Amino acid sequence: MAEGKLLRSFLEVPRDSHFPIQNLPFGVFRRRGQPEGPPRPATAIGDFALDLAAVSAARLAQETLNMFLGLGRPAWKEARATLQKILSADEPVLRDNEALRKNCLVPMSDVEMLLPITVGDYTDFFCSVHHARNCGFIFRGPQTPVNPNWFHLPVGYHGRASSVIISGTDIIRPRGQGHPTGSSQPYFGPSQKLDFELEMAAIVGPGNELGKPIDIADAEDHIFGLVVMNDWSARDIQAWETIPLGPFLGKSFSTSVSPWIVTLDALKPFACEAPKQEPEPLPYLAEKNHINYDIPLEAWIKPKEQSEASVVTKTNFKHMYWTVTQQLAHHTVNGCNLRPGDMFATGTLSGPEPDSLGCLLEITWNGQKEISVGNSIRKFLQDGDEVILTACCKGEDYNVGFGTCTGKILPSLP
Amino acid sequence: MAEGKLLRSFLEVPRDSHFPIQNLPFGVFRRRGQPEGPPRPATAIGDFALDLAAVSAARLAQETLNMFLGLGRPAWKEARATLQKILSADEPVLRDNEALRKNCLVPMSDVEMLLPITVGDYTDFFCSVHHARNCGFIFRGPQTPVNPNWFHLPVGYHGRASSVIISGTDIIRPRGQGHPTGSSQPYFGPSQKLDFELEMAAIVGPGNELGKPIDIADAEDHIFGLVVMNDWSARDIQAWETIPLGPFLGKSFSTSVSPWIVTLDALKPFACEAPKQEPEPLPYLAEKNHINYDIPLEAWIKPKEQSEASVVTKTNFKHMYWTVTQQLAHHTVNGCNLRPGDMFATGTLSGPEPDSLGCLLEITWNGQKEISVGNSIRKFLQDGDEVILTACCKGEDYNVGFGTCTGKILPSLP
Repeated sequence: MAEGKLLRSFLEVPRDSHFPIQNLPFGVFRRRGQPEGPPRPATAIGDFALDLAAVSAARLAQETLNMFLGLGRPAWKEARATLQKILSADEPVLRDNEALRKNCLVPMSDVEMLLPITVGDYTDFFCSVHHARNCGFIFRGPQTPVNPNWFHLPVGYHGRASSVIISGTDIIRPRGQGHPTGSSQPYFGPSQKLDFELEMAAIVGPGNELGKPIDIADAEDHIFGLVVMNDWSARDIQAWETIPLGPFLGKSFSTSVSPWIVTLDALKPFACEAPKQEPEPLPYLAEKNHINYDIPLEAWIKPKEQSEASVVTKTNFKHMYWTVTQQLAHHTVNGCNLRPGDMFATGTLSGPEPDSLGCLLEITWNGQKEISVGNSIRKFLQDGDEVILTACCKGEDYNVGFGTCTGKILPSLP
Repeated sequence: MAEGKLLRSFLEVPRDSHFPIQNLPFGVFRRRGQPEGPPRPATAIGDFALDLAAVSAARLAQETLNMFLGLGRPAWKEARATLQKILSADEPVLRDNEALRKNCLVPMSDVEMLLPITVGDYTDFFCSVHHARNCGFIFRGPQTPVNPNWFHLPVGYHGRASSVIISGTDIIRPRGQGHPTGSSQPYFGPSQKLDFELEMAAIVGPGNELGKPIDIADAEDHIFGLVVMNDWSARDIQAWETIPLGPFLGKSFSTSVSPWIVTLDALKPFACEAPKQEPEPLPYLAEKNHINYDIPLEAWIKPKEQSEASVVTKTNFKHMYWTVTQQLAHHTVNGCNLRPGDMFATGTLSGPEPDSLGCLLEITWNGQKEISVGNSIRKFLQDGDEVILTACCKGEDYNVGFGTCTGKILPSLP
């Protein structure tokens, strides 16, 4: 079935929905109130989750999407075409079968979304030059805010896979050591500089064998889709621990992801040229089709003392300097093996403008200035604050959105 | 059954064996020449692997040890006592049953050892002060070779779990970017500074829930045992990529582990005081029972042009500054969750003497001097070289050993 503006579902999908028939992201849910109920792979359509096992996609009758991800793009395209067909306005098979509809279409209000994949390994890149420059400036000063290697390779590090959690899970403020002042002992206690980071993450499809790099020309075939990610960060813990081996406990307490994986196929209409790269990348990173996607991103904070959330930044995925395909080619060039369900995060997606910075570290310049959030002021996150990240591509006739990635801060343990 | 010097097996175990009845490490094997045969959990006794499923330890009839690891120390102790009993000289059940012996005792020459665990997350610490000091000196100069945070917390970083491999697997020389000289482009090609790192790794037993730190007093109950580990390192790739987020592709191409997990219970007779810590650790890292184990370690290289291996370093686990229990308490203090089968590596276990350095980076001072390996000379590893790491606690009447952790370097892909 061809993509097209005119494709419509028999279900009424609100014009501003993130999930029209042109999107069809993949996720895993459980029926609300059934804590022992089986996880069900699903696609989102308007305000419904379509239970894929119930419409007999047998290879989707798993508790996670990993096996489906391993099948590769031909299988993904086939599933997408089938789903677009059965959901379209012209196709009676589901439209006219009330019993089947009732069985497989679950109102979003009745679902609890689960982590859709088992994450084997999670890698966090550092691919916004604006973020890299601001962080370098804050931590190392104005001499060389961006380290020379940054323009030659997508800098990244291994993150913690066990603490990747689904949107909506509460975040317990981490405890840890913070930088000592002068010759005192290091601070120990609840983090005093708890931050969010607005990121996206690519979800890996078919992997590769150890020792067999993936050529950049084939990299796209190994990426299933994208999610929105909050790389929660304790800046005081991070600052003290990070030399010389990089971020560790300042990050590993929680990393939230949005529940619906939006496929690259759905994002295709929003492809755009990626930033020009200077110097020219080495041949293993040089790509013919050097593209990003035009995905507007927002971060909102709902302060604990308020009933409404306020936007604190607006940025866009398209500013990313190193593309996800370059990240993947780089990651495997040494022979490192990927597995279905691995995650590559982009790093904080700050844009070039002052109101497009992707974390409080940058927005408040490491707590040197306060910002207004509605009627409140903040330098970093307070207990009870909720952070809501969202991403949505705006087409002429429809959106392709990601829903939200949320988390509320709970006080540290005593 | 009590531990004791006098405990003997009905099987003849050579005096210098790593695997007497006092050891009983756990691993997973497949019968050689049966590539499709099922993985079998086992213990090692002398020159035999004892197939645990065949002696009806039903909860060990899994393809990996993860579930067994999750059961905790009471179950481990029970399994150990049962195994010591059925293998002892006085117990007829196995000794006098030829059919059962034939079925469950597999000569080591007939087994192919497999990775005994599914590694959820792998963390690499940096806990030898000698290694930290030497690396700091080589990379940052003599001013502050050891960064101030090092004496306050066990510095560590997340490693790559997918490329943790079993001893004996060949290592393909990684390709990657190396540091440019002057204003040239970075080097790209096969690593020219391929190194080994002599480490050990702790294997996690029961994990913890996200947000619930493990108290240092309980940390030992979460550690099943130890293996020998080779943290293969491409020094040129590492040097160029590492600022500011730490090691990545310079490490992620392969990490080898020895096949038999030696339990803390077997190591108990070799416990010794750990180095005195100054300054005193913060309360969450302060432990009453501050112990290491006296485990002599050796690294051997068999150069491609020679038929014999030569020892290149001798060191000991006991020099480690931060103990494995301190590593575990630190790792979870921020709420990070552990899962059974997670690995904590020690970092390179260099000792205080010039002949106890744990990697070629230190031994050759980053390639500034050559060393003799038998009749050959080396600065870093060459294609065809094999590295053999080994560890063995020497008791008065028996050893508790780890066998070997080996890997041979294959040329880089064209």
